Amino acid sequence: MAGMETIQYNLPQSRIPQAWYNIVADLPKPMAPVLHPGTMKPIGPDDLAPLFPLALILQEVSTEREIEIPGEVRQIYAQWRPSPLYRARRLEQALDTPAHIYYKYEGVSPAGSHKPNTAVAQAYYNKKEGTKRLSTETGAGQWGSSLAMACAFFGMECKVYMVRVSYDQKPYRRALMEAYGATVAASPSNETEIGRAILQEHPGTSGSLGIAISEAVEVAAKDPNTKYALGSVLNHVLLHQTVIGQEAIEQMAMADDEPDVILGCTGGGSNFAGLVMPYLGRKIKGQCNARVVAVEPAACPSLTKGRFTYDFGDTGHLTPLVKMHTLGSTFVPPGIHAGGLRYHGMAPLVSHVMDLGLIEATTVQQLDAFAAGIQFARAEGIIPAPEANHAIAGAIAEALQAKQEGKPRTILFSLSGHGHFDMQSYADYQAGKLQNYDYPEEEIAMALAGLPTVG
Amino acid sequence: MAGMETIQYNLPQSRIPQAWYNIVADLPKPMAPVLHPGTMKPIGPDDLAPLFPLALILQEVSTEREIEIPGEVRQIYAQWRPSPLYRARRLEQALDTPAHIYYKYEGVSPAGSHKPNTAVAQAYYNKKEGTKRLSTETGAGQWGSSLAMACAFFGMECKVYMVRVSYDQKPYRRALMEAYGATVAASPSNETEIGRAILQEHPGTSGSLGIAISEAVEVAAKDPNTKYALGSVLNHVLLHQTVIGQEAIEQMAMADDEPDVILGCTGGGSNFAGLVMPYLGRKIKGQCNARVVAVEPAACPSLTKGRFTYDFGDTGHLTPLVKMHTLGSTFVPPGIHAGGLRYHGMAPLVSHVMDLGLIEATTVQQLDAFAAGIQFARAEGIIPAPEANHAIAGAIAEALQAKQEGKPRTILFSLSGHGHFDMQSYADYQAGKLQNYDYPEEEIAMALAGLPTVG
Repeated sequence: MAGMETIQYNLPQSRIPQAWYNIVADLPKPMAPVLHPGTMKPIGPDDLAPLFPLALILQEVSTEREIEIPGEVRQIYAQWRPSPLYRARRLEQALDTPAHIYYKYEGVSPAGSHKPNTAVAQAYYNKKEGTKRLSTETGAGQWGSSLAMACAFFGMECKVYMVRVSYDQKPYRRALMEAYGATVAASPSNETEIGRAILQEHPGTSGSLGIAISEAVEVAAKDPNTKYALGSVLNHVLLHQTVIGQEAIEQMAMADDEPDVILGCTGGGSNFAGLVMPYLGRKIKGQCNARVVAVEPAACPSLTKGRFTYDFGDTGHLTPLVKMHTLGSTFVPPGIHAGGLRYHGMAPLVSHVMDLGLIEATTVQQLDAFAAGIQFARAEGIIPAPEANHAIAGAIAEALQAKQEGKPRTILFSLSGHGHFDMQSYADYQAGKLQNYDYPEEEIAMALAGLPTVG
Repeated sequence: MAGMETIQYNLPQSRIPQAWYNIVADLPKPMAPVLHPGTMKPIGPDDLAPLFPLALILQEVSTEREIEIPGEVRQIYAQWRPSPLYRARRLEQALDTPAHIYYKYEGVSPAGSHKPNTAVAQAYYNKKEGTKRLSTETGAGQWGSSLAMACAFFGMECKVYMVRVSYDQKPYRRALMEAYGATVAASPSNETEIGRAILQEHPGTSGSLGIAISEAVEVAAKDPNTKYALGSVLNHVLLHQTVIGQEAIEQMAMADDEPDVILGCTGGGSNFAGLVMPYLGRKIKGQCNARVVAVEPAACPSLTKGRFTYDFGDTGHLTPLVKMHTLGSTFVPPGIHAGGLRYHGMAPLVSHVMDLGLIEATTVQQLDAFAAGIQFARAEGIIPAPEANHAIAGAIAEALQAKQEGKPRTILFSLSGHGHFDMQSYADYQAGKLQNYDYPEEEIAMALAGLPTVG
């Protein structure tokens, strides 16, 4: 029998990273401080204590390079980590490209995306500090299901405020969270003051992530047994995702290959950061020359079109002010199906490395993203999440450019999750019901005009 | 940091089996021949030639112990094989049992179940012999999506007749097949003679697997470029699944453990056979003492309540006659959500090893199956397919018995797939909308009374 080509690079359970990598320790310039929205002064740990356990607050502000992963968290990671690195040989063949295409696949987690990497860690630290219940928001549902699963593992209650439109459109995501034992409410709900106020003013509202965040935060702030958990944006969340990139570095060495370009889709920034931060740490030290590319939806282009300035994390302006690339916190992105990428801002850490010139950014239109996803599925078998289709489109563009130049190129991208709970979007795409969105210039200009004045 | 407990036993890509294991070579007594429904004489390869490529017909009747897996098939297997063997330590802890529970997880395949193991092989042999198009039927959709994916890999067309009720109730399974490029028709359709005839007689019918089989067979019989593919029951289909058990034997050795009991759910029998046949080969040689248990739904108990005799494979009586445990080919099982287990008969090979006393069988009620699935999901994170919940319920019963006896017991079961496309059934279960079904004694007696007389 002919020899086989390797397409799967697997590490043993023992190679799950021992520590998360904190790039803050290696940054040539420190990040801007987070500001209290009332005083406009830098916030301290006490300001966050009602919402998060101390361990996570300390991670949020840590400047240590390595933060040890607790044994119990690593033990749970072993359910799906180290995640596989694939060489997309059938896709390469379909594209007839000299490029090598690799993807790090996070859809092997039981909840189907990279989100459990931080959900399990957040649940662990909360459990350890006595939290009985976690509250959170979810849009598309990847984050809500991941936290629901993590809470099931640690025997904690989980309360999810799910944006009304998703609650109605994605009953199976809700069924998944409820199978894990979580309680799910459509947001805005009658359970919170802010929810009741909004329902009174807009009885038929379809909700928003901003409103759902406000409800989850309100519940946590009022109940000493409940803390709040966020699935992206914050430093400690991005930190937990760095297992992805650390494993990828080791797996690319197994493949005896080195990426020329590294891509990931960006919404809040956690999946992208998870893959690229360990590489950027090397880049800062001159040990890596790869171009690092954030791929965002044309309809919500915070890195490519946003302003790098202080803004609120939510539409209701309850959160602290963070310096980030933002389209304006009152901007409501068009209804693209990649719900996980519909966020007005970008993680401050990702914004910061963009500002430092360590990464670049590009945009992909919705129809191009789905076309890429379909091509990928037919070659590689995996149905990608609509969010991940943006990274695939970016990778295919790189591979075709290499073909045009007639030169090799090694491409590595993050396939953040599968699309098993997003099949309606594929059905709509195949039926010709989806559309592209022009850059919403006026709406963004208006939202940016309303930015808070700082300093 | 404390040492980690191993929960994942992974083999490298190089350990994908080189050959499928054909237990027919080791059977102490040969299987009964397959009979032509017209002549009642044993059928020959020529009778099957319009439907299947020669390579698969030869595998169907082969008595060779090992059949080499073609390099191209092994190369595609490498996308998800060797599949992981898990030690269910968190489930053991939740059950507080001295038993060790292992599960071989086939849901890691891109289509989400064990079905691609044979879909890829069948597509390969068809492609090699010039087939341009494959036709098949699907009920719940696991098989249809697997064949659609395999056809995409080999650049063949794929036509799927999907039982009308599933077509309407499971639009996302259909979207998945269409994303892979398959054409899906609700069955009965207007595309076939049998379909048109049935539609005329029963305009509002919800269809059945038996009707869908007839349509797919008719299309293949009439078009020289089209062949037919079946997802279970036949010898060659079961053969392709034996990679599961071969890998499991090696992985159990890695775990330094030996199963006392091996379980799998049974519908047509392919998932069960895939895990157990390599073990039964050893059992025949006295190298394995494990009890081997088929777990079937109480609503469709072919092995536990059926008769071991000649019957048709389909409701329309178009197929050859095979000797199997059957509830009568006109029996229509109650509408349990484990659609993959709703088959009136059992694979002749599984029936034969049952008749030889090599395996035993037990039944599980629908509500117990879902309760087991929910308990499993909260402990292990994976949402199982409704079919697989039967195996889990069987494994949990064994673990609790071990606990009651205060003795260790090593349990191995096959987790045949995930339930990501079956969340409606979980939603219904959680909402209290599902029910158990009494043994349908009268209906089965009537169906058995109508069995054909042979010899």
